[in-house]
Amino acid sequence: MNEDIPRRGLMLVLSSPSGAGKTTLSRRLLEADGNIRLSVSATTRPMRPGEVHGKDYHFISAEEFAAWVAEGKFLEHAQVFGNRYGTPSHLVNDALVAGRDVLFDIDWQGTQQLKEKMRDDLVSIFILPPSHAELERRLRTRALDSEETVQKRMAKASDEISHWAEYDYVIVNTDLDKALADIQAILNAERLKRSRQTGISAFVNSLV
Amino acid sequence: MNEDIPRRGLMLVLSSPSGAGKTTLSRRLLEADGNIRLSVSATTRPMRPGEVHGKDYHFISAEEFAAWVAEGKFLEHAQVFGNRYGTPSHLVNDALVAGRDVLFDIDWQGTQQLKEKMRDDLVSIFILPPSHAELERRLRTRALDSEETVQKRMAKASDEISHWAEYDYVIVNTDLDKALADIQAILNAERLKRSRQTGISAFVNSLV
Repeated sequence: MNEDIPRRGLMLVLSSPSGAGKTTLSRRLLEADGNIRLSVSATTRPMRPGEVHGKDYHFISAEEFAAWVAEGKFLEHAQVFGNRYGTPSHLVNDALVAGRDVLFDIDWQGTQQLKEKMRDDLVSIFILPPSHAELERRLRTRALDSEETVQKRMAKASDEISHWAEYDYVIVNTDLDKALADIQAILNAERLKRSRQTGISAFVNSLV
Repeated sequence: MNEDIPRRGLMLVLSSPSGAGKTTLSRRLLEADGNIRLSVSATTRPMRPGEVHGKDYHFISAEEFAAWVAEGKFLEHAQVFGNRYGTPSHLVNDALVAGRDVLFDIDWQGTQQLKEKMRDDLVSIFILPPSHAELERRLRTRALDSEETVQKRMAKASDEISHWAEYDYVIVNTDLDKALADIQAILNAERLKRSRQTGISAFVNSLV
């Protein structure tokens, strides 16, 4: 990052099958980097104890959600177990204009929706597990479930993995520290792209 | 870098006006990263004491050089003080296929020629000095020359700087260690681009 040069923020998407370490990597990235924040979604799901409106989610009614969809106020939205979730575009745009980066922990379908609307701002990373055996081990350790449940999870993971080629970058998560460093390198590099440095032209004029 | 996944090497171009620290940054990058080497040019200039054929330059005759140009064997070539210099394409291609990266310390004209022929393999970085005053100071310290000579150098630097917008990335070299880290982040990120990881498709097939 060129500290004193104004720049437009970017949207960093991390996708991966369950069991590839994405949640841990997202958390550690947010802890390590003060200039990127997790995107806060709007949802129709009821607030749970301890959750904070505007921090965990923007809790809105089903009617309001439907109206926002109709008005094109979401960059992407989806329905999960009867509840609706979506990314309000004005919140993301405010961050980008202010030079802040936004992290998205979403699947390939959400990524495709974001790409349609925000192609130039999007940086997408797909995280892969180190091997088939390790993926199965991680899905098994997550819960003491039946063989059927594990097989269902494997099928879901396979489906997500099949979309790897739609991403800009691919990281194999063999070592968590190494994978985090890789994500940070990508983030830092993308911040140095000429096209994102909105203040560089004025800076160059001051040089010559 | 995903260590065990075969990938195609990339061509990293560093350009900057004289006095922006490019030579030092190139040297330190080569020392720090074992997988990138400086491109070795062919030249018609006579070999100097201590130089090694094939390491410093490929020393060839003017006739040979002209024949290579006619046969399209150069990715880029130029004439400086009556001597000819060029980048032989087969040497670069051999490196890229073997997954090795090649560093180019060239000006905007060389960069344009490379871009025409190798767009997908090229990653270009422009390095800027931190201020007009600092640029002038560095150009003045380089030699105890006349005011006219310094002004000529400034004009040349301004001309080079005017091409900053033709590069993928722009780094302001305020601090040498920071600028080196920025170049390394860009190099590491570009190595993780899906499109360069020629072995990733086979790896994914082994996962599912």
